[in-house]
Amino acid sequence: MSKVRVHNMSVSLDGYGTGEGQTLDEPFGHAGHRLLGWALGTKTFQTQIHGGTGGSDGVDEAFAAKWGPGIGAEIMGRNKFGPQRGPWTDEEWKGWWGDDPVFHTPVIVLTHHPRPMLEMEGGTTFYFVDGTPEEALAKAREVADGLDVRIGGGPTTVNEFLKADLIDHMHIAVTPIILGRGVNLWEGLEGLEDRFDIEVVSSPSGATHLTFERRPRD
Amino acid sequence: MSKVRVHNMSVSLDGYGTGEGQTLDEPFGHAGHRLLGWALGTKTFQTQIHGGTGGSDGVDEAFAAKWGPGIGAEIMGRNKFGPQRGPWTDEEWKGWWGDDPVFHTPVIVLTHHPRPMLEMEGGTTFYFVDGTPEEALAKAREVADGLDVRIGGGPTTVNEFLKADLIDHMHIAVTPIILGRGVNLWEGLEGLEDRFDIEVVSSPSGATHLTFERRPRD
Repeated sequence: MSKVRVHNMSVSLDGYGTGEGQTLDEPFGHAGHRLLGWALGTKTFQTQIHGGTGGSDGVDEAFAAKWGPGIGAEIMGRNKFGPQRGPWTDEEWKGWWGDDPVFHTPVIVLTHHPRPMLEMEGGTTFYFVDGTPEEALAKAREVADGLDVRIGGGPTTVNEFLKADLIDHMHIAVTPIILGRGVNLWEGLEGLEDRFDIEVVSSPSGATHLTFERRPRD
Repeated sequence: MSKVRVHNMSVSLDGYGTGEGQTLDEPFGHAGHRLLGWALGTKTFQTQIHGGTGGSDGVDEAFAAKWGPGIGAEIMGRNKFGPQRGPWTDEEWKGWWGDDPVFHTPVIVLTHHPRPMLEMEGGTTFYFVDGTPEEALAKAREVADGLDVRIGGGPTTVNEFLKADLIDHMHIAVTPIILGRGVNLWEGLEGLEDRFDIEVVSSPSGATHLTFERRPRD
């Protein structure tokens, strides 16, 4: 069975995975780009995501690089797709990532307001699905061609999949800042550690990388 | 000027420094001893605090050992001193630490219900003080003989001293568990990182040690 994976999910020391007040200019609200500070300079982000060259190739890159290989589909929350809320008033919005998004796979966007699928350049197709985490995962597996499914965030979506116990592997990066408000990844997840084997390593960037590996289910 | 220091303050991934439901048997409430898991096996805890021998002597010990040297007085919250709340009904309670407490210095206990000082064996004297963090610190400096003052916790007390910007050096150990409830060390401290230089290192025990060094005040 293919795995369900989370990569590069960044949280503050107080557990917030995004800030308050998302807008077109500030996808992470008052958090700005601080949560991803460890990642932005890596080779993976510089080349695959920003289309440039170069980038760091140390501890942070070792984690960042695991984002793509083996992934056949992503599931994301609507707030990762865009800043709009409620019924779509403008279907011209096609995500933050331009005509050739970084995903290059099918992407399931969770929303209570479905709209027609959106085929982009480079292999990314957005499907808009109103359903439970289980239903979204079934749809993702249909289109993932036997490969793994990435839960791409934001924190609300990762939190929901953790509550539903659907995640097999999770990489979290803790950034030493106190956000104070936003969406807390850990809300309602008391005792989560009982289900996972956890390893921890810090990086010279100041981030701490944690891997959560789901223990065998009985 | 002597420094104000915090050592071995342990929090969960979601920021809780103690659990809910403190009792005589469970000083950390539902957290039990999990937050201090990284520390209990160290040489410092095994010898100085539990009066035994042996103990680990690696990364965790390097941090644990900094708890004592150079400290002339501790300030603690009443909930670190004991599980009682409200007016003292039984002044027989002399802390969790027996006749010869681990501190061996004066200790200021913050409480709205003062009681006579309590001189213990081994150099520990408890003073019960009703006052602001600034007033407690002034009293601690009076009795610290020019040495540093340790803010001993619990998390409510450390939080109050951080809000009052009275802390010069702070060692935090993050344990990879989700407590879900209790006292959150980071409550109301958005942007704390702006006042400190922070370093981070992980330990094979699973804990992540962070040091916060106060930047020069203008």
